[in-house]
Amino acid sequence: MFLLATKHYILYPYCSIITKGDYMQYPNNIKKIRNHTSISHSNRGMSLENLINMTNDYYIKKDIALIHKKPTPIGVVEVNYSNHKKLIKKAYFKEQSTLDYNGVYRGKYIEFDAKETLNKTAFPLANVHEHQIEQIDGVIKHGGIAFLIIKMNTFYYLLKGEDFLNFIQNTKRKSIPYSYIQDNAIIIKENYQPALNYLKIIDEIYFKGE
Amino acid sequence: MFLLATKHYILYPYCSIITKGDYMQYPNNIKKIRNHTSISHSNRGMSLENLINMTNDYYIKKDIALIHKKPTPIGVVEVNYSNHKKLIKKAYFKEQSTLDYNGVYRGKYIEFDAKETLNKTAFPLANVHEHQIEQIDGVIKHGGIAFLIIKMNTFYYLLKGEDFLNFIQNTKRKSIPYSYIQDNAIIIKENYQPALNYLKIIDEIYFKGE
Repeated sequence: MFLLATKHYILYPYCSIITKGDYMQYPNNIKKIRNHTSISHSNRGMSLENLINMTNDYYIKKDIALIHKKPTPIGVVEVNYSNHKKLIKKAYFKEQSTLDYNGVYRGKYIEFDAKETLNKTAFPLANVHEHQIEQIDGVIKHGGIAFLIIKMNTFYYLLKGEDFLNFIQNTKRKSIPYSYIQDNAIIIKENYQPALNYLKIIDEIYFKGE
Repeated sequence: MFLLATKHYILYPYCSIITKGDYMQYPNNIKKIRNHTSISHSNRGMSLENLINMTNDYYIKKDIALIHKKPTPIGVVEVNYSNHKKLIKKAYFKEQSTLDYNGVYRGKYIEFDAKETLNKTAFPLANVHEHQIEQIDGVIKHGGIAFLIIKMNTFYYLLKGEDFLNFIQNTKRKSIPYSYIQDNAIIIKENYQPALNYLKIIDEIYFKGE
């Protein structure tokens, strides 16, 4: 396992793998990214982000939906020019003020975020920032579809934005009990292709009878 | 004029100002960003990107729409840790494969890009990358609204994605003649608030009679 995790911090697409994904906690307390290249015919061990990216690629390829992960915002402090190329010499990661994924499906605006917790009994609300809560509220108000995909206790849950807001507006708790997620969210079954067919759940919830 | 342009390359929000915006061409051939802080009560001289960002902020504040500029994708090559903070030491700008702005308006998915040309007779198609053309096509196919905002000859034009695709699918030309834009695009009038009310045009085109 430790041998698998040797290549880190090199060319992250969209700079996002470090903030979310599949980490290994090392004895020196430095988190390193697990290298999944040796896992080919199984989703096992794949990060939630990877599963969703693969799913979105499948949706695009099959002309089902057009949903992308937004690049992680970066604050650029210093840029150098060498051979007419701009190279960033100093920058820092900023927090996404919206949800990570958005796009269009059956004419509708879709926006969601993927969250993972190792906590078995409750989903800590510190995982969802104030701006993101406002964004969920705004998307729904403007007629879009907003939700969270939560990985918890080895299951993938789709929690509607409405049910998420309903919980936080009626409580002062700092986490959502697992029982609330079990009662209100819908399990997305892991699959071969697409890996996490979350739009099937969206069909059932928002396009029933169409 | 030259004195105004003294602060550059410091904390660009979303890292995007360098790729688009209001440049000054210096004798040494280095492009520098014009500093607009001295212009307060007029849009004059403001970059197209700034006008659109101000307009989107207005839409959000007035609960009209939820449209954001996507962060510019960055390829991170090297990250350092100091005082438990991640600092990017080496990275480069990547090209956006989608359009720069997207969001939700009246339940509909909206995606667009802002393009500027100093060419007075034609809009060079090199301004729109292959991936972006595919994206415009995909958004329309999935029932969303896609368009370009083009600044040309001091006017701001909204060119529907359909009309843009129609032009490039029926020609091998490397630019769109200004006459085609004048005949097919709609002028967005510059205003005090919002600065560029492009959703007024969207109402007229896509929500007529509703």
